[in-house]
Amino acid sequence: MWGVKLRYNSEVGLARQIYSSFKQQILTGRFPEGEVLPSTRELAKGLGVSRNTVCEAYDMLWTEGFIISRQGASSRVAEGLHITPGNTEHKKERKKEHNPIVWDFKTGQPDLSLFPWKLWSKMINNAASCLPAQQLGYSGPRGYEPLCEEIAGWLLRSRSMEVQPGDIYITSGATQALHLLVDILNKDKFSFVLENPSHPGIRTVIEDRGYPLQWMATDNQGADVSTIQDNKLSAIYVTPSHQFPLGGILPAGRRAELIRLACDNNCYIIEDDYDSEFRYSGSPISPIYSMDFSHVVYVGTFSKTMFPALRIGFVILPGKLQEKWEHGRNYLDVQNSILEQVALTEFLHSRKMDKHIQRMRRVYGEKRKILLSSVEHTFGSLVKPWGDASGLHLSLQFPGITFGREFISECRNAGIRIATVIQYCSTADKHMDKLLLGYGHLTHVQIEEGIRALYRVWEEYYC
Amino acid sequence: MWGVKLRYNSEVGLARQIYSSFKQQILTGRFPEGEVLPSTRELAKGLGVSRNTVCEAYDMLWTEGFIISRQGASSRVAEGLHITPGNTEHKKERKKEHNPIVWDFKTGQPDLSLFPWKLWSKMINNAASCLPAQQLGYSGPRGYEPLCEEIAGWLLRSRSMEVQPGDIYITSGATQALHLLVDILNKDKFSFVLENPSHPGIRTVIEDRGYPLQWMATDNQGADVSTIQDNKLSAIYVTPSHQFPLGGILPAGRRAELIRLACDNNCYIIEDDYDSEFRYSGSPISPIYSMDFSHVVYVGTFSKTMFPALRIGFVILPGKLQEKWEHGRNYLDVQNSILEQVALTEFLHSRKMDKHIQRMRRVYGEKRKILLSSVEHTFGSLVKPWGDASGLHLSLQFPGITFGREFISECRNAGIRIATVIQYCSTADKHMDKLLLGYGHLTHVQIEEGIRALYRVWEEYYC
Repeated sequence: MWGVKLRYNSEVGLARQIYSSFKQQILTGRFPEGEVLPSTRELAKGLGVSRNTVCEAYDMLWTEGFIISRQGASSRVAEGLHITPGNTEHKKERKKEHNPIVWDFKTGQPDLSLFPWKLWSKMINNAASCLPAQQLGYSGPRGYEPLCEEIAGWLLRSRSMEVQPGDIYITSGATQALHLLVDILNKDKFSFVLENPSHPGIRTVIEDRGYPLQWMATDNQGADVSTIQDNKLSAIYVTPSHQFPLGGILPAGRRAELIRLACDNNCYIIEDDYDSEFRYSGSPISPIYSMDFSHVVYVGTFSKTMFPALRIGFVILPGKLQEKWEHGRNYLDVQNSILEQVALTEFLHSRKMDKHIQRMRRVYGEKRKILLSSVEHTFGSLVKPWGDASGLHLSLQFPGITFGREFISECRNAGIRIATVIQYCSTADKHMDKLLLGYGHLTHVQIEEGIRALYRVWEEYYC
Repeated sequence: MWGVKLRYNSEVGLARQIYSSFKQQILTGRFPEGEVLPSTRELAKGLGVSRNTVCEAYDMLWTEGFIISRQGASSRVAEGLHITPGNTEHKKERKKEHNPIVWDFKTGQPDLSLFPWKLWSKMINNAASCLPAQQLGYSGPRGYEPLCEEIAGWLLRSRSMEVQPGDIYITSGATQALHLLVDILNKDKFSFVLENPSHPGIRTVIEDRGYPLQWMATDNQGADVSTIQDNKLSAIYVTPSHQFPLGGILPAGRRAELIRLACDNNCYIIEDDYDSEFRYSGSPISPIYSMDFSHVVYVGTFSKTMFPALRIGFVILPGKLQEKWEHGRNYLDVQNSILEQVALTEFLHSRKMDKHIQRMRRVYGEKRKILLSSVEHTFGSLVKPWGDASGLHLSLQFPGITFGREFISECRNAGIRIATVIQYCSTADKHMDKLLLGYGHLTHVQIEEGIRALYRVWEEYYC
């Protein structure tokens, strides 16, 4: 009957089904313009539905301009509605299947099995049952103020950082902070400076935007500021507490040099402090921000201390950047969701965060020891660990070896996911003898077995 | 004693206090380079703390490169550490104080007092107590798959939209979707087309990026596609279900014309469906997406149906755009937080969303009636309401009147927040006789009093 096939067990109402069917036939040209539609009475009888249902369907067609005149014998198809349906392909090609990953040395993964989920769930419940009413609508790009205050207190306790809570802006993780900062700090024809090697996150944003980029050489003490060539700078991005991926701590002398450079050239330092909580010998490294907060934008995240899917981080902004940030965030995604901000406030206020970090520092320190002793036991003097004893990853130097894609792919075939340092470099002329191992999320057994598996591939490939 | 003032009731440990104090004095030059520090024994005695505490402080200074040699009599300040402290101003100027807002006709505000908070809190609790383990780390830019499936089902039930769940991507609200789409769809030297007037969200992103922009005229039927001048198009942005701010429904003929234009010029239509759930006479308007999904990117949000601080929306992407979107989102903020996605899945699955929307449609419909009758009662024939009976705002035409900033500011002084349509226009030559009133969040009394208050200002100003 007029191409309409009614499904009686559908959640889509009958009127809407009639409407959809007619619309489709008008658009494809099966009902050409000017065509007279059946009267509501006739169609109702033919389909075995009430006349009201048909009237409702015709009303929808009329409101949206598919037919002229609303009801009865004289309803006609409106003009100019025939469209050629576009190509309806769906991109659903997925990457080809690999062997399963058995030993995953991916970096930046915390151990989620030891997070106090029950406690967190309780804090979420508390937050959900008393969400502050004025925070349920749009509350703007700054973030939940009590959370900013708790973060300020926590930074003071853990890193001697003295921060005005009003300078702290909540973000959806560090990635968002870096994304927004690139747009805010860019100056026409000036360049961003990155460490070589460095994390691809900020690099990709800068390249996607087409902004100029230059590199600082990096050694086992972190970035070498003196290798900056061009002084027309938009910003300098550094990971001073634990260089990613090499692991060095930037010494005070280089920090001071960096600050002088930023002052002289009127640019900002982006300090990405992604995992300095986890330092296994001695106290957490104090950030550059504590040395000069007028030229430093500090980026922090709870992805490693809490869990990645929380999507909460923060940025500490000099006064001059705050207006630009608020504008940018307003048109990026307005603000963070409120619920988890409230729960995190309680998690910090009750010092559960301090406790959790203390515990995880022991756990990760232990894992690191296991990793180092496995490496030493398996590879002996062939390998030298790099960097400071902190964070959730380790870079290993194999003097005399050059690692390439083929080796990584051999590892992958053997069920090992591992990265080379060269993947993070701007050019393939340095650090070619280094591998990068994330271990935070692995069990002791996985670490030991993984290193033995790595040795087997390495032996076959290089010996 | 060496400028160190210890606070014993502080949560910052004594060693960290000593470290901070020395660091500060080194950076400001009070301890110049080469200066010999007191021995650990001497300082411990002087400060009345254990020698271990001082050793720990010296260790931190040594690790970070502030002093040379670790302990004892020969510790010296390292070279090149003196920096001139930057300007430490904090931008804390806030906008000047106004009278309090008594009647707030702001647009886009749902009535949060009627949201089923208890039920939602229960669903949050359920979600928090059984968060899916594989979703706690980084799970990528697509979003929680069961949520995409529930959204597909809901779109079918409520709008006859047939959508592949795999084409749905979860976003942090519609703002994020528009932000990302502008970058993805931009073609060099091609322009974006916006409705005139339109919401400033996407316009600001396009202008901030410096991309070319052109305008379509808009009347009481929505955008007039025939007014597009230049056919080199990056994308066309429309609000066809309820034009913002004028309120028209785009008729099928114009929709078909729009699709033909997009096909012919190989560009995309961005369909922003921000509040079509709330239609008070007849069924929700079916989106353009249902007519041709190969050239339409559909943007949806839960900010109005749920609450703004939830920060969950979605976008339906043609296959060709999915890879670009995933790349963009990966480097924007990776993904949404997981918890509320899980709870929202349950809210949709249990049909609580359908129920809530049904209820709110009645509530908002009632408020709209009150608003219209208040306006009619107070202004009589001086005013003509515009647009379709749907959404959370209404535009009112005052034939013969030209509204400007001064009138808005007079209203503000009288405690009324209200907008003109002209604020949303590209040029000040059309729609100058219209005001824009959001009413979703107001009580009946607030609406009635607000209209009376508006009349008093209007009378004084224009009569």
